[in-house]
Amino acid sequence: MNKARFEAFSDGVFAFAITLLVLGFVLPDLRGASNRTLTIALLHLWPNLLAYALSFGVIGIMWQNHHALFRLVARVDRTVVFLNLLLLGGTAFIPFATSTLGSYPASAPATFLYGLVLSYCSTAYNLMLAHLVRVRAFFPSVTPETIAATQRAYRVGWIAYVTAAALAMIVPVVSFAAYIAIAVYYLVPRGVDADLADDSTS
Amino acid sequence: MNKARFEAFSDGVFAFAITLLVLGFVLPDLRGASNRTLTIALLHLWPNLLAYALSFGVIGIMWQNHHALFRLVARVDRTVVFLNLLLLGGTAFIPFATSTLGSYPASAPATFLYGLVLSYCSTAYNLMLAHLVRVRAFFPSVTPETIAATQRAYRVGWIAYVTAAALAMIVPVVSFAAYIAIAVYYLVPRGVDADLADDSTS
Amino acid sequence: MNKARFEAFSDGVFAFAITLLVLGFVLPDLRGASNRTLTIALLHLWPNLLAYALSFGVIGIMWQNHHALFRLVARVDRTVVFLNLLLLGGTAFIPFATSTLGSYPASAPATFLYGLVLSYCSTAYNLMLAHLVRVRAFFPSVTPETIAATQRAYRVGWIAYVTAAALAMIVPVVSFAAYIAIAVYYLVPRGVDADLADDSTS
Amino acid sequence: MNKARFEAFSDGVFAFAITLLVLGFVLPDLRGASNRTLTIALLHLWPNLLAYALSFGVIGIMWQNHHALFRLVARVDRTVVFLNLLLLGGTAFIPFATSTLGSYPASAPATFLYGLVLSYCSTAYNLMLAHLVRVRAFFPSVTPETIAATQRAYRVGWIAYVTAAALAMIVPVVSFAAYIAIAVYYLVPRGVDADLADDSTS
Repeated sequence: MNKARFEAFSDGVFAFAITLLVLGFVLPDLRGASNRTLTIALLHLWPNLLAYALSFGVIGIMWQNHHALFRLVARVDRTVVFLNLLLLGGTAFIPFATSTLGSYPASAPATFLYGLVLSYCSTAYNLMLAHLVRVRAFFPSVTPETIAATQRAYRVGWIAYVTAAALAMIVPVVSFAAYIAIAVYYLVPRGVDADLADDSTS
Repeated sequence: MNKARFEAFSDGVFAFAITLLVLGFVLPDLRGASNRTLTIALLHLWPNLLAYALSFGVIGIMWQNHHALFRLVARVDRTVVFLNLLLLGGTAFIPFATSTLGSYPASAPATFLYGLVLSYCSTAYNLMLAHLVRVRAFFPSVTPETIAATQRAYRVGWIAYVTAAALAMIVPVVSFAAYIAIAVYYLVPRGVDADLADDSTS
Repeated sequence: MNKARFEAFSDGVFAFAITLLVLGFVLPDLRGASNRTLTIALLHLWPNLLAYALSFGVIGIMWQNHHALFRLVARVDRTVVFLNLLLLGGTAFIPFATSTLGSYPASAPATFLYGLVLSYCSTAYNLMLAHLVRVRAFFPSVTPETIAATQRAYRVGWIAYVTAAALAMIVPVVSFAAYIAIAVYYLVPRGVDADLADDSTS
Repeated sequence: MNKARFEAFSDGVFAFAITLLVLGFVLPDLRGASNRTLTIALLHLWPNLLAYALSFGVIGIMWQNHHALFRLVARVDRTVVFLNLLLLGGTAFIPFATSTLGSYPASAPATFLYGLVLSYCSTAYNLMLAHLVRVRAFFPSVTPETIAATQRAYRVGWIAYVTAAALAMIVPVVSFAAYIAIAVYYLVPRGVDADLADDSTS
């Protein structure tokens, strides 16, 4: 498997999934209704907007992590392709989880489903990283410290998502807020990402 | 962050968002109806067609501006990636704003929402440009005059969109016409774009 | 405007539009219905399947023509980008024209709309070619004979589409059959395409 | 036809079709319903999830096979482009077959439709391979053994899909299980794929 095509395919799925998020916005048929009714219907979409912004950040971060990770990787074997398909399957599911979250923002089922999908994606990332470490797929120039820092960052992310998902059962609104907090937190460079920031001209 | 992948991802979202605009066309179920009924239903979609053509132009221009801007840029840091995500989040929202505008073309809420989204995108562009200037991310060959011309063009665009959006509150039809006028105006090369026209063979 | 990015963006729209054609297949909610009812509902989609196959061919041909044309082109100016946007706007509209044709296959309005869109796209191609000839945008190695053959092929295509669209007013089924005949005909190499077949290894 | 663009276009359709699978998940409007009702509605989507995972694997495998095959191919002629369009037309149809399978998982019509589409795609692959062999389109370094192994693998796949599709008429659930078994089986490298695993760094 050619690494460039592997990345191009993954990028395609990330870009398509992020753009499909817009299908979470649906208006009832209001033809003939007053401006006031239409305005209220639009304003009632604010949880959908929040879920849209959240998922745009989440998929954006996943795409960045994917690049940051595979910049360090010299070769891609069939197991990586398989684990990557599992990851992309979760990513491509996010538009549905997002529209459900936007439609039922304070409900336990929708908040839990959303956390389940993110926990699943995070699990796939951790499995992929574990495999890459096991088969020594990294460029020789990648230091053990960088790999260890990446592993720590991935594990912390996994714990955060699983915890937020579990919270959904008890206090859905806190869980929703936690997803937003995690997304905001991850938009700040750390670990492998901070490392990349140094040579961002490449 | 690799600049080529950054551009490829952005291009993907632009191309995908522009193609999703077609989902703004929806016919009621007319199976068994007369040709006349179907013809009338199709003709009643003319505001959707107008909104479709407008947004096709708008996203096309945004895509061109994105290229014109990043042709001048030597490196992409995490802040640019973040601001770019904000921009793409606005772009990917345009299909919904377009279908709303097409369905309620003369209404204040739909016209205002459309202007709000374009103003938001323009704001993201201005913030991105300001950051690129601040961190001196441009190629050494880019003259201060080119940068200043680009900044002026971006500010004028921002003022135009915000003004048109504000008009939506009072005279929605004029606001709609203003969006079209701005799109037509921007399809003519100016500033950074005119500069590119000189070496269009590259 | 960089030619490679111009082509990549166009390819993206072609690939997305061709894949969106599948949204023309919609089943009514038949949960709990018998196998017989579901089978009949699926078989009733045969005009949609015909329209799907037709449009898949049409967009596939347009994509091939785009490549065949721009292989001859050395530089892309702003006018080409603009005319190309007009072309892509027609291409991205094809999924809607297709689902309308599939839902009302023997009706004059749906058949005419379909022909109108293809005539529009053919017009955009002819305008683009005329501009490329006017500004001498072709590689020096491209012979006047190749250009003349391409122009003839484009004009014939335009006449075919406009004639088939006009037929829709009188005998919609013949018009539908004509679209299929034109698509089948264009899948055989001619003019600029036959020229390319000689050096298909590149 | 340029081979790189041929592959990029195909990749775009594969990536887009795989992402469109998510549209198979549709919830009824449950606003105001209890958490229990929403949870039950989500759990009732399990056949859709199964069909989603199956088709994600199927399209993922088709994409891998496409790469594995065209890595061996030196040149792409018009016939290959045509046969590839037939293949992509089947691939882009998979989201509809998947949502039908997910909605009517134990029904003969939905299971048969799904098998029909996969058999069709497998037929297109076999025709494409037969043509590539006939015109000797492979790189000189590709051994007759590799080609023969690929042909055997493709024929076995075809027989498997046609058999599973035929089963749908009699025992739909067994047919569904067979699709899953085939997908799982093909995710393990064999023939041309195993060959590629040796030089996965390229």
